[in-house]
Amino acid sequence: MSPKITTELLKQLRQVMKSPKYVQEPVQAYIVPSGDAHQSEYIAPCDCRRAFISGFDGSAGTAIVTEQHAAMWTDGRYFLQAAHQMDNNWTLMKMGLKDTPTQEDWLVSVLPEGSKVGVDPFIIPADQWKRMSKALRSAGHDLVPVKENLIDTIWTDCPQRPCKPLITLDLSYTGVSWRDKIVALRSKMAERKVLWFVVTALDEVAWLFNLRGSDVEYNPVFFAYAVIGMNTIRLFIDGDRMMDPVVREHLQLDSNLEPEFKIQVMPYGSILSDLQAVGADLSPKEKVWLSDKASYALTEAIPKAYQYLTPYTPICIAKAVKNASETEGMRRAHIKDAVALCELFNWLEKEVPKGTVTEIIAADKAEEFRSQQKDFVELSFATISSTGPNGAIIHYKPVPETNRTLSVNEIYLLDSGAQYKDGTTDVTRTMHFGTPSAYEKECFTYVLKGHIAVSAAIFPNGTKGHLLDSFARSALWDCGLDYLHGTGHGVGSFLNVHEGPCGISYKTFADEPLEAGMIVSDEPGYYEDGSFGIRIENVVLVIPAETKYNFKNRGSLTFEPLTLVPIQTKMIDVNLLTQKECDWVNNYHQKCREVIGAELERQGRHEALRWLIRETEPLARVQ
Amino acid sequence: MSPKITTELLKQLRQVMKSPKYVQEPVQAYIVPSGDAHQSEYIAPCDCRRAFISGFDGSAGTAIVTEQHAAMWTDGRYFLQAAHQMDNNWTLMKMGLKDTPTQEDWLVSVLPEGSKVGVDPFIIPADQWKRMSKALRSAGHDLVPVKENLIDTIWTDCPQRPCKPLITLDLSYTGVSWRDKIVALRSKMAERKVLWFVVTALDEVAWLFNLRGSDVEYNPVFFAYAVIGMNTIRLFIDGDRMMDPVVREHLQLDSNLEPEFKIQVMPYGSILSDLQAVGADLSPKEKVWLSDKASYALTEAIPKAYQYLTPYTPICIAKAVKNASETEGMRRAHIKDAVALCELFNWLEKEVPKGTVTEIIAADKAEEFRSQQKDFVELSFATISSTGPNGAIIHYKPVPETNRTLSVNEIYLLDSGAQYKDGTTDVTRTMHFGTPSAYEKECFTYVLKGHIAVSAAIFPNGTKGHLLDSFARSALWDCGLDYLHGTGHGVGSFLNVHEGPCGISYKTFADEPLEAGMIVSDEPGYYEDGSFGIRIENVVLVIPAETKYNFKNRGSLTFEPLTLVPIQTKMIDVNLLTQKECDWVNNYHQKCREVIGAELERQGRHEALRWLIRETEPLARVQ
Repeated sequence: MSPKITTELLKQLRQVMKSPKYVQEPVQAYIVPSGDAHQSEYIAPCDCRRAFISGFDGSAGTAIVTEQHAAMWTDGRYFLQAAHQMDNNWTLMKMGLKDTPTQEDWLVSVLPEGSKVGVDPFIIPADQWKRMSKALRSAGHDLVPVKENLIDTIWTDCPQRPCKPLITLDLSYTGVSWRDKIVALRSKMAERKVLWFVVTALDEVAWLFNLRGSDVEYNPVFFAYAVIGMNTIRLFIDGDRMMDPVVREHLQLDSNLEPEFKIQVMPYGSILSDLQAVGADLSPKEKVWLSDKASYALTEAIPKAYQYLTPYTPICIAKAVKNASETEGMRRAHIKDAVALCELFNWLEKEVPKGTVTEIIAADKAEEFRSQQKDFVELSFATISSTGPNGAIIHYKPVPETNRTLSVNEIYLLDSGAQYKDGTTDVTRTMHFGTPSAYEKECFTYVLKGHIAVSAAIFPNGTKGHLLDSFARSALWDCGLDYLHGTGHGVGSFLNVHEGPCGISYKTFADEPLEAGMIVSDEPGYYEDGSFGIRIENVVLVIPAETKYNFKNRGSLTFEPLTLVPIQTKMIDVNLLTQKECDWVNNYHQKCREVIGAELERQGRHEALRWLIRETEPLARVQ
Repeated sequence: MSPKITTELLKQLRQVMKSPKYVQEPVQAYIVPSGDAHQSEYIAPCDCRRAFISGFDGSAGTAIVTEQHAAMWTDGRYFLQAAHQMDNNWTLMKMGLKDTPTQEDWLVSVLPEGSKVGVDPFIIPADQWKRMSKALRSAGHDLVPVKENLIDTIWTDCPQRPCKPLITLDLSYTGVSWRDKIVALRSKMAERKVLWFVVTALDEVAWLFNLRGSDVEYNPVFFAYAVIGMNTIRLFIDGDRMMDPVVREHLQLDSNLEPEFKIQVMPYGSILSDLQAVGADLSPKEKVWLSDKASYALTEAIPKAYQYLTPYTPICIAKAVKNASETEGMRRAHIKDAVALCELFNWLEKEVPKGTVTEIIAADKAEEFRSQQKDFVELSFATISSTGPNGAIIHYKPVPETNRTLSVNEIYLLDSGAQYKDGTTDVTRTMHFGTPSAYEKECFTYVLKGHIAVSAAIFPNGTKGHLLDSFARSALWDCGLDYLHGTGHGVGSFLNVHEGPCGISYKTFADEPLEAGMIVSDEPGYYEDGSFGIRIENVVLVIPAETKYNFKNRGSLTFEPLTLVPIQTKMIDVNLLTQKECDWVNNYHQKCREVIGAELERQGRHEALRWLIRETEPLARVQ
């Protein structure tokens, strides 16, 4: 992977930063955040402005360009990738390391007195604006909104914003109709005494209306906003998507509905003026509810006194707790996904020794097997198919320049998942197709111990996920090892593979408590730069736990793995496991064999079934 | 313990809340925080205003009185105690429970529109003022400073503010002279480009000048403020304490010092006017550094643009990392403390079966044995001597009305500690002088497993203490049990038994990373209301850990117990321990036997030595 040469682009950007055509006064720094106007993690090509200007295309990162400097902040997952993709114009700011300055501190250290720092107000979340604006102001600088996106002005071949057809989901998938979701939302609004709720996150719009799209790769969402009043529903969406009779029927656009359930369809671009009209028409004590991560532009459309901002919206919280239909859908999706992976690993085992399988071929083969499964829609993220040293690049994606051939001498790490109409999957397995070294097995076993420690943890109702993060690290810490990413994220139901408000991380302090029905990933790892990467990831469902006692009648929770794919026993140093851990592996494999075995049988995939049976042989500890 | 009857007092308070003599406009609510003007946790009798108005005298709690209501917020440690001490005029607000409103939410729910909420600006920390003021304002109310403390106006027999003699500490105790501490502080000030630093916490003043006092029971501090400039040192302190020649010599008040080390002594009460003068004299870009927990009154003395507020001051952070002299002092103090406790437990073992030992007698005996040790100054907190159901009152202190006789049928919990001139101790042991039930042993063993999990934890440099909290709970959680308090707090060196900026708690998110040299407590517990309480507490020192590998060269840390008092093996269900846990107990007891045994021998305490040897017999697991 050779770095993008950005000298000319940065020169152009620095010119428009001073051009009266775009800025009232010159800005001495310009911030290019990762997100789009919906603060999406995964974005459409037209929104990949940070990648365009810097070359770094990981999922998280913020670029800041000043007259003299260009700097990129990203986290531990992307240190290697960003270093590879950016040229010498850029300074990499490694977030999470002690000596790395915050964006604000860095700006203060490099800017001349009384500088203006520009940013697109549609792209920066309100909470971030507030923090940054305050920090800059206290150092004598100003954060200023620049209406025209400056990257767009120099991006001559910027792709168009996508506008693809919608998919409607019926009750058998969603469990709750969009009408009932609106009713529930309005009751939350009444509780908090707010009159309006603005839906800005794309997955929240999709979830609320039981619609899916494909405007953004991997995320089945579509560009839209919604504004929900106590008696009105406004959906801001472009294109002829609302002409589709199936969608019209689903949203009952042509039915004689009660007025409070009548959906008014409006152009996507009219959200700001509509919100400004809402804002202008409020009486004292009337409030408008927005996520504090909504864009600064939309938040500012509502006068401050009327804003009601929360870190998590009621939709985000409701969406996280899956109902029975969604949970059953997720189970079905994970069974199909496991079938595909059994096929893949069986195939790899035969093909890898021939020396003909590259990372890209393996990733394509994984997609091929998945696409054979019922209701397959697309992948849920770019497949991380990585062998040997590439495995240490945590969010690696094989490209021709880096594509490595799998061999019997290197560890292979596959982190992949799919969108099925009934659910979203995300699974990582780390395999060796030859004979792993004692050290590789040792590291793998510590990661496995961490995985089990989280998966088998029992904890009181009301516990936040971040309190479980250290369980995943304890075995690694004991030997002086660790990994520089969180342990788990929320997973959507045929929605985004990363979703809030829960997770398992040392970093996330604002997470909401885990509740039965929530679904998260459990994915500790260990990475050695230049050598190998290990990660073991299951998607797990939060379920009630039976305990011997019940302190203060609080009740307890634990996890049930939805992912049912064998964990390669060849990589395990059984003597490092406790009896309990050994039993966990054996029980897990027994369940894989039963559930996935039955499905492989049903689908007539006999060779993969034989592989599954072999791979799920019980471990035996040397006593 | 019968509740305090507060009907008349509340009536008087509600009168002064409307009296033009004290308030410009009537206030509809008045907040009575726990703290004093220094935001101390332990306070002098003259500052016990919340206890005076409500009867509840636990260490943490905030009272709010409105025209109709009186409500008290306190945390899980004090639910039972507060309920016992307050009469029916008061509503107990149990913090940490899901349905308990915050003070702000509650005020908004009970106040008539456009209310004024009063508070003494010297007593409320600036950060709390800010949060509360914002919340009230957004609901149409106002937080207003009431200069005269309204409790003081109705507290006719309020005791005088203490003003006791000072103790000077030489280099053999402190390791660093006050001059060098000032130099280090000024270098931190220069780093942050601040011109002035205001020392508001009493333990920070004491630490900075290597002085101790006894104005507040249990905390060897004295009422004072300090304002440190780059060339000036001002100490605000009352009484003739600065007449003491030893103090004058220690502070070199009469020496021909360089001007920047010349201490100007000023009256305690002149701090506000002095700070206002400092504030009025600042040029742009000149900053004054204060803790964000400094009082609203002092913070507001500095114009906002010149304030530099941080959650932890450089003194707080420097004070937390003990140097070699302090660490050695802490070791010595803990050895002496263990000698006293061996004597006590040996004595209790003989006396309890006679039925003559009450909780108060046991507490007094513990103090008697401690006071026999060299350099004993006072206790470090009110001894929690509790048997049977009293043990479930987490911060119980025996008083004649509740005083229970120790017996061979009940669990006895003793949480106690002392101030020695060389260090501060804090230790909890839970004992049974008869035969514990299987259930009591089971619970005790889970608590022990949690204690060991923290004490033996290995974790990377830079880890914050709150990431270790769940280790202490895991064994309890597995059985559906838990405890409603944090796991550990920082401990001062002949200073406050609770100090920041580190700790081990699910609640503390703003803690600073643990560093070698920091000292914290490790004290998981389990409490059954009406039955018993269990807690096992050691004070532990953060030390570097040797590990097999060293990821990213970060280095690892672990804990070394400074407390060396046997953990009653009779209470342990050995079969619930892993071999590693069993080894930990045996190694710990081996060290107790060696170190404390030698000191008991040296002090000629042969009976206690025999007790120690018996109590430190190795555990044997049934294989």
